[in-house]
Amino acid sequence: MSWTLPPVPSLDDAARDAARARQDRLTKPPGSLGRLEELSIRLAAITGRPRPALARKTIVVMAADHGVTAEGVSAYPAEVTRQMVLNFLRGGAAINVLARAAGARLVVVNAGLAGPVKAPPGVASVRSDETRWVDAPVAPGTANLARGPAMDRLQAERSIELGLRTVAEELRRGLDVLATGEMGIGNSTAAAAVTAVLTSRPSRDVAGRGTGIDPAGLERKVAAIERAIQVNRPDPSDPLDVLRKVGGLEIGAMAGAIIGAAAARVPVVLDGFISGAAALVAVALAPRARGFLIAAHRSVEPGHQAILELLDIEPLLDFGLRLGEGSGAALVLPILDAAARLLDEMATFEDAGISERAGP
Amino acid sequence: MSWTLPPVPSLDDAARDAARARQDRLTKPPGSLGRLEELSIRLAAITGRPRPALARKTIVVMAADHGVTAEGVSAYPAEVTRQMVLNFLRGGAAINVLARAAGARLVVVNAGLAGPVKAPPGVASVRSDETRWVDAPVAPGTANLARGPAMDRLQAERSIELGLRTVAEELRRGLDVLATGEMGIGNSTAAAAVTAVLTSRPSRDVAGRGTGIDPAGLERKVAAIERAIQVNRPDPSDPLDVLRKVGGLEIGAMAGAIIGAAAARVPVVLDGFISGAAALVAVALAPRARGFLIAAHRSVEPGHQAILELLDIEPLLDFGLRLGEGSGAALVLPILDAAARLLDEMATFEDAGISERAGP
Repeated sequence: MSWTLPPVPSLDDAARDAARARQDRLTKPPGSLGRLEELSIRLAAITGRPRPALARKTIVVMAADHGVTAEGVSAYPAEVTRQMVLNFLRGGAAINVLARAAGARLVVVNAGLAGPVKAPPGVASVRSDETRWVDAPVAPGTANLARGPAMDRLQAERSIELGLRTVAEELRRGLDVLATGEMGIGNSTAAAAVTAVLTSRPSRDVAGRGTGIDPAGLERKVAAIERAIQVNRPDPSDPLDVLRKVGGLEIGAMAGAIIGAAAARVPVVLDGFISGAAALVAVALAPRARGFLIAAHRSVEPGHQAILELLDIEPLLDFGLRLGEGSGAALVLPILDAAARLLDEMATFEDAGISERAGP
Repeated sequence: MSWTLPPVPSLDDAARDAARARQDRLTKPPGSLGRLEELSIRLAAITGRPRPALARKTIVVMAADHGVTAEGVSAYPAEVTRQMVLNFLRGGAAINVLARAAGARLVVVNAGLAGPVKAPPGVASVRSDETRWVDAPVAPGTANLARGPAMDRLQAERSIELGLRTVAEELRRGLDVLATGEMGIGNSTAAAAVTAVLTSRPSRDVAGRGTGIDPAGLERKVAAIERAIQVNRPDPSDPLDVLRKVGGLEIGAMAGAIIGAAAARVPVVLDGFISGAAALVAVALAPRARGFLIAAHRSVEPGHQAILELLDIEPLLDFGLRLGEGSGAALVLPILDAAARLLDEMATFEDAGISERAGP
């Protein structure tokens, strides 16, 4: 590598223990807030603060195109990637609504679109007031991974570097929690290939219907993933080799963002399957990053379950989501915020003069 | 009855169909937002508005005492009910934090505390800026339901009337969604008795550890519920008879609040087990109210599952919560808000000039 990854620290045991002790003094039966208590304790261990605050939230949406769309693996034409990026920039997509609802900043990154994003005739110009737009494509999309490597090693490195840089800028703006999202027609094929290699599962077990492809399309998708692995022979012990041969530019950029956030003790909220595949790459590159991950939801994509099992993290929601964009991650930001605020703002038994439980 | 319940309308099919049609035109693969889409469609059917807004939120916490605490059924002494009400009024409890986080108004109702709420020496006076305090006890707690009826029929009716009045006042302030909560040491015993009678389950199957009682205490609790049913012989076909003999004043007040909200086409977000028992009473009195209920979470209390099955509603979260106060209901308010806003604010394919899926 032409650059070094920032070191990811250990979780902070002292902050975790202090948070746990405080939870047991708050005015409620111990343990009665269930996962909210666990989450707050986890956030303390991640941030190193016994009473963490999650006021400054960023959702980063990494967008890129995929040469594998030539294999007929998606329900939507490839140009939808750029059309949806334009929708993000205009504020009309699900992630825009969810970012506003969560009080989060939105950063949209061109990690490798097949061409420039420009407004079609007759529609308003791109709005920059609501979102930060990072127009820094590593390449004009990937090559068709079913026929050869998706990218070269330098491109894979640069995609990770783009994620690191994006998070570094968010840290300068002030960042307490990062949510990962993506857009890229064809990227559930790349994510499935990465997942198959890094979890040692058969392609068929980790390939799903993506945005809604029909059964024949799913067969083409499985075949494309199988061919990709056969043609490229990615080395499961070398995450950069896997990323470059069967991954995607937005997957690399998300992996870089995850490592950059973890290195700065910022909790990372993973969205669904594609974010999860990026987390596999990130954790293979920087194993300690695993402790900084929070899984927002369980996607309907079958490969997502394999990822959650390997990473050994339990998602918060099971809502049947399969949109991507960071939508599930954005949806749980208010829950994480609530968990942190309960730990910080609730009165203790001593504060409130309340009787504790009778007997031992 | 000395008064009549307000009529609960049918769900609005036209608004539901319009919401469903709009969901399919929004810039995402159809169905990809899973339960968020279902929720938004449900909210349309409830409110009668094709694009519902949930800006004005109220969490109502009904508080009352329970004579059955004399049987040693709770981990906490009975005076904790009033101490916690004081904590609500001072802003230090979990529900205060969650109400602030959700941007919801909090209404604390004395539906039947055993005595007045007054600040102990040395602590600050009651704050009224954050919460509305309705000090209208129907009785100074219930009688011990294991020895005779918890209340008389007039008290049961008045508890329901108190819930109706409380919601009427919130409707005057402007109300788009109501979340139900409660506080009452001993009330999981009353809720279990109500649930056993209205779901025809054995007491042992619906009794749980409440705020955290030990195994011996759980045996006393099961015995108290069994005795309550044996001594009082509540009539399962007469919900007011069940409420008065084995229920609680806050359970009656919540049932009234549920009916009042449903009658006004306001969605009702149920918290956990005690809210669920109140919903059983409400739906027995006004069957159409069922369609207006949203279950926030699956409580760890075993009786809650029996309620969810009878009402045939699927909860949104499974977080191991067992606090009450309306905490789980408050926690999902941002999710409901997000569901409504997605339906209202997202661009359609036509708006955004985005290609639709290929093929038929």
